[in-house]
Amino acid sequence: MFVASNEATVTPWEAEAFVDYDKLIKIFGSKPLTDNEINLLKSITGEIHPMLRRHVFYSHRDFDKFIESYRSGIRCALYTGRGPSGHTHLGHILPWIFTKWLQDKLGLELFFQMTDDEKYWHSEGGNIEEFNRLAYENILDLAALGLDPAKTHVIIDSEDIAFLYPIAVKVAKKITFSTQKGAFGFTESTNVGMIFYPVLQISVAFLPTELYGERVDVLIPAGIDQDPYWRIARDLAPSLGYSKPAQIHNKLLPGLGIGGKMSSSKPETAIYTTDLPEEAVKKIIRAYTGGQPTAELQRKLGGDPDHCPVFKMYEMLFEEDDKKLQDRYHACKTGALLCGECKAELAERVARFLKDHQAKRKAAESYVDKYLIRNKFNPPRIRK
Amino acid sequence: MFVASNEATVTPWEAEAFVDYDKLIKIFGSKPLTDNEINLLKSITGEIHPMLRRHVFYSHRDFDKFIESYRSGIRCALYTGRGPSGHTHLGHILPWIFTKWLQDKLGLELFFQMTDDEKYWHSEGGNIEEFNRLAYENILDLAALGLDPAKTHVIIDSEDIAFLYPIAVKVAKKITFSTQKGAFGFTESTNVGMIFYPVLQISVAFLPTELYGERVDVLIPAGIDQDPYWRIARDLAPSLGYSKPAQIHNKLLPGLGIGGKMSSSKPETAIYTTDLPEEAVKKIIRAYTGGQPTAELQRKLGGDPDHCPVFKMYEMLFEEDDKKLQDRYHACKTGALLCGECKAELAERVARFLKDHQAKRKAAESYVDKYLIRNKFNPPRIRK
Repeated sequence: MFVASNEATVTPWEAEAFVDYDKLIKIFGSKPLTDNEINLLKSITGEIHPMLRRHVFYSHRDFDKFIESYRSGIRCALYTGRGPSGHTHLGHILPWIFTKWLQDKLGLELFFQMTDDEKYWHSEGGNIEEFNRLAYENILDLAALGLDPAKTHVIIDSEDIAFLYPIAVKVAKKITFSTQKGAFGFTESTNVGMIFYPVLQISVAFLPTELYGERVDVLIPAGIDQDPYWRIARDLAPSLGYSKPAQIHNKLLPGLGIGGKMSSSKPETAIYTTDLPEEAVKKIIRAYTGGQPTAELQRKLGGDPDHCPVFKMYEMLFEEDDKKLQDRYHACKTGALLCGECKAELAERVARFLKDHQAKRKAAESYVDKYLIRNKFNPPRIRK
Repeated sequence: MFVASNEATVTPWEAEAFVDYDKLIKIFGSKPLTDNEINLLKSITGEIHPMLRRHVFYSHRDFDKFIESYRSGIRCALYTGRGPSGHTHLGHILPWIFTKWLQDKLGLELFFQMTDDEKYWHSEGGNIEEFNRLAYENILDLAALGLDPAKTHVIIDSEDIAFLYPIAVKVAKKITFSTQKGAFGFTESTNVGMIFYPVLQISVAFLPTELYGERVDVLIPAGIDQDPYWRIARDLAPSLGYSKPAQIHNKLLPGLGIGGKMSSSKPETAIYTTDLPEEAVKKIIRAYTGGQPTAELQRKLGGDPDHCPVFKMYEMLFEEDDKKLQDRYHACKTGALLCGECKAELAERVARFLKDHQAKRKAAESYVDKYLIRNKFNPPRIRK
């Protein structure tokens, strides 16, 4: 469906949206998510989230084993995270929406890492205080999406390092510069923060086991671009006495421009949760669709929903009803639906979402502390 | 006086004792400690420690500036540390004895880093719990030497990382793998713990400034083999808004064998603070002295105190009286003093020291907590 621009750019910080996802599965060596795994989950949840039905989550490692662990009564947890380099946009919240659904359906605790240190190390200039501030901004989005504060534990690296370091010490001993170089494309002029950082992202996968003092099987819903971290985590897990973390990978939400994921590097093609609804409307009205130059031609030749970021927005986030989505697809293809009409309807839905989300975000300011792991757990200890 | 075996081996973990210290000054680019600096210190302390008079501390960076800062009322602090890879031996406590003297004479707080993480990363196998346990053992030696618990703040890396990480995040951004490689001889198969570790040793130099919220000038008494860390720390300090840490470098206590520093890798030539006095006596009686094969020849040709580890033990630790030390030197040179007599006297002094030290060490078990930084300060915060 999608065409790879350059497969070599799929490092965790350079992922693109319009890539050949089937090819990525082969490159990364993960497995496609099939009806087998989906039905296994359905046997517990009773229903299936649209992001699964539509293969927005489309690839995995040991998702089936994770569900089996859950069914057999082994303690399980979810883990995902965010590099707080700016405000949250719709591409970021996509996996969080699914994660919330999993949390609700399976009753699981979620460990959520805010990597303010990583974003600082990867930035040109910048200061850690600003990335740290943004971490707190981003928590408001978790809250607005309804992630359960009693079951959602946020680790902010720069402040909660005590939770990770006792594990990181063990992980760091097992990873050489050469491993990092291969997985992340580091060079000799990479700063040592960037070189150390993967150790922390890996360590969170083992934190639940340390905190509960018993085996905890962890599922990580995240973009497939994060796979290099988990591959190392899985390699190390047995020798450190932990379960291998399972993963379920989502596709990236396209930006509103030509090609590419929704990205903070192109703010005019990204819709932030903090955008004024009227700003968001403007961005959508100006979006690239790949439609024909004139309404007349569009009526005649139809549009190209498979490569249209506006259609993808419906498919991945804003149209829950499969039938309506299919109708929209055909109406586009056949020229019955013009881009302007399609955009206007999306703009209205997005504006409504933002208004609601922003009210919840504001309300969350009073209880953001309830998400912080430091207010709920003691760090694991080297010295027992 | 001493002859360098191989200058390339002077990395922080491979330092030897019998090296050409004048050459080291040139290699590292530090300055010899002269009467100027010593008299500057004397103008405050009123007296001079034997380790200064005898040039056991013999090299420095900005020691004079540090004393000027102290005199002008700028807040000052001391910083040193230990890699807790085993029990403490006499080579380790040598700089601590001098540090205690400085602490007492100048009324300064001392920040003491226990690098259990580093020792684990550098070990073949091993486990972090054991290095951590040894850190607590080593604190007992600080206590037994009389370092003031109210003014001595021990940071155990694996447990007190929260004190260092907010600083380490900033330091790590400014150091590349290539810098580390040059300074520490790292390769691509070095584990990422070792690569990250220097960031932590550097960060402690800036901790006092963060804890007090004002400029704190720091003096580091330590072996010159640690200089690569401080050179980087000094390079970075201005851009991070900290004072460059000053240093004062000591020579390493020789082991009781032929050549080499007192080292845990040759336990039969090292005297541990935990050795039974009778074990220590045996080690001294068996020590290499470079003396003549027979008493008759010794009487005729004399000994070689400049290359004798037994004489060095007197010079560096066990003979405070300069006149008596000089007498011993000449008695050895002229053959008036036989090695057996000289060893027996040292053995008696060492045994007496150990007995006393071990009683104090035992007593310190009840108040070791008073040294832990976590019981006295809150970690510095990214988020103000």
